[in-house]
Amino acid sequence: MNTPVLSLSRRLRKSPFEARSHAGAATASVYNHVVLPTAYASLEEDYWHLREHVQIWDVACQIQVEITGPDALKLAEYLTPRDLSNIVPGQCMYVPLIDERAGIINDPIILCLAPNRFWLSISDSDVLLWVKGLAVGAGFDVEVSDPDVFPLSLQGPKSETLLSRLIEEPVEDIRFFRFIETQIAGIPLVVARTGWSGQGGFELYLSDPSEGERLWDAVVAVGADLNLRPGCPNLIDRIETGLLSHGNDMTLHNNPIESGLDRFFKMGKAADYLGRDALERIADAGCPQKMVRLVVPGDPVRNPRETYLISFAGSGLDGCVTSITYSPRLKCNVGMGYVPSDHAEIGTELTITLPDGVVTGRIADKDWRTGKN
Amino acid sequence: MNTPVLSLSRRLRKSPFEARSHAGAATASVYNHVVLPTAYASLEEDYWHLREHVQIWDVACQIQVEITGPDALKLAEYLTPRDLSNIVPGQCMYVPLIDERAGIINDPIILCLAPNRFWLSISDSDVLLWVKGLAVGAGFDVEVSDPDVFPLSLQGPKSETLLSRLIEEPVEDIRFFRFIETQIAGIPLVVARTGWSGQGGFELYLSDPSEGERLWDAVVAVGADLNLRPGCPNLIDRIETGLLSHGNDMTLHNNPIESGLDRFFKMGKAADYLGRDALERIADAGCPQKMVRLVVPGDPVRNPRETYLISFAGSGLDGCVTSITYSPRLKCNVGMGYVPSDHAEIGTELTITLPDGVVTGRIADKDWRTGKN
Repeated sequence: MNTPVLSLSRRLRKSPFEARSHAGAATASVYNHVVLPTAYASLEEDYWHLREHVQIWDVACQIQVEITGPDALKLAEYLTPRDLSNIVPGQCMYVPLIDERAGIINDPIILCLAPNRFWLSISDSDVLLWVKGLAVGAGFDVEVSDPDVFPLSLQGPKSETLLSRLIEEPVEDIRFFRFIETQIAGIPLVVARTGWSGQGGFELYLSDPSEGERLWDAVVAVGADLNLRPGCPNLIDRIETGLLSHGNDMTLHNNPIESGLDRFFKMGKAADYLGRDALERIADAGCPQKMVRLVVPGDPVRNPRETYLISFAGSGLDGCVTSITYSPRLKCNVGMGYVPSDHAEIGTELTITLPDGVVTGRIADKDWRTGKN
Repeated sequence: MNTPVLSLSRRLRKSPFEARSHAGAATASVYNHVVLPTAYASLEEDYWHLREHVQIWDVACQIQVEITGPDALKLAEYLTPRDLSNIVPGQCMYVPLIDERAGIINDPIILCLAPNRFWLSISDSDVLLWVKGLAVGAGFDVEVSDPDVFPLSLQGPKSETLLSRLIEEPVEDIRFFRFIETQIAGIPLVVARTGWSGQGGFELYLSDPSEGERLWDAVVAVGADLNLRPGCPNLIDRIETGLLSHGNDMTLHNNPIESGLDRFFKMGKAADYLGRDALERIADAGCPQKMVRLVVPGDPVRNPRETYLISFAGSGLDGCVTSITYSPRLKCNVGMGYVPSDHAEIGTELTITLPDGVVTGRIADKDWRTGKN
């Protein structure tokens, strides 16, 4: 299949880092109307490097939706089944947003900047329009906007050493899913211990896009001996880590219970939220399908453009693969997908229909064990 | 600058035509989470071909937001300052959607399928989330969804001849901005005399994605002697035609009066709509800036990735270019942009700051005349 080159125009929002980040990118996509590099050397080379060293990622595409005003917390609570009543400034929380039917709108990280000021650092859908529509329609007393705040991510085992050379504060004082306000080279930043990899790291939220290249260069200047390189969210690492990708692994047509996102919240929070009735009905009735991890031995399977069907021997039931890739470390394919809830046990054998044939795999636990080896 | 290849995954919604349309595409972008080819042979070759022959375009990215139910018309009216009270089944209208501050959310074509059933055929923003948010928040009695309905476009002077070979109904009976329900090769379609070019044509709305390739092939099978080729919305043609591109020429930060979209509606419609107060205040006060057409003689100017500044001699005021390209037919650059309203007269001289220097141009009328030649 032909692969066209990505064309740019003003319609795609400009990353403040793109003059640096696009230079070596082999492939890219568009995410929240912003270019997102998807591979540099190759998926596999990028993967090994990420696990051993530290990478600088242009994730400007993780744009912010800012909610401020007297009803900011009330509206934030209204958007998600997760209890935000104890959130404090400096804290991040992963918050699935759902609609009136409990369909997943997006799965941002919320940052509490002040008791009445929040950022939703979003995955790929126009949450601005959703939140504005709800706020205007239901009369919340808030301002909703998408300020020019763009994250730069430092990921990998050497990210802590790298960051310690750049900020005055002790890096170890930044706890997981917490942030501080600091500066690098005089550039004010929000720095959070978060990031879309399994290798640890930080996200630097830049509020002045004109400083993007200077920030990038300041980071790169102190990273040579750490083997710092440009990188991007890596398909192999994120599947191995079990990070769900909105649009790939769950959409508006999935609810957070079947997608397994209910591990991030308890049912029955006090505050009012949209979709409560629907979500409680789903919780009571149980979901017919469930997201599981899949291991498929053999030749590398390409991540699906279309949906690969999952079948079970002696059963008319089926499921589908949502993400899959070859793990050069585990020497098998690792993936995620939905299967009927009564076929979701670890070790269950299944077949997957690929464009060029059928392969056999098993349902795995979160460490990719199938109980069969 | 390096240009990465576009990478695909399930996150990007699948066009039913992409197995055909991606094959010869040199460049592409992402629009409404769907791949949109942006050039085949080259912008210029595609342009000349479009003006002389007929092209088949994969514009599946013009996805539909469907509104059905007892309040469907009331909600549609609420979204736009344009009066929809006389819309009838079979009719299309261009409807700028605005927010509470009269900022432009999107500029879809609305199709009236039945008195209580509409499609918004949208430009690049998640109108689904906006309309759902408003409907849920304000309690409209409607269903809002984005069904798997994808347009295929036939554009160019020979499009009428081409379509006449494919449908039983007389093509000339389909008036401008009207549609019929018909079929091609047994595939049910909505066929409208619309399309994002200045050369005339039709859009075929396919409701069964599994028929996409068969529909494409059925069209191609009867087009050889008309020199039918795959194509896509062409930058040169769309600027020459004065078609505004949401995201390029207007955003949420523009209102429809300064963008010139007020020529599509009269102020003061009877039905309630969001943003009325803001829009009336803007209409009363007048806009400080106005969208104009620009002619720039000399070497070809590339369409901006960043915003090119417009300046006026002896004035501290400035403006910006939103779209520009070289017209091989007019042998000059043609573009669009915002200028101060008191510097918007046809023929006004201006300078544009490009990445590699400053060029001089003039404000032009809709036929690209500046009154100076």
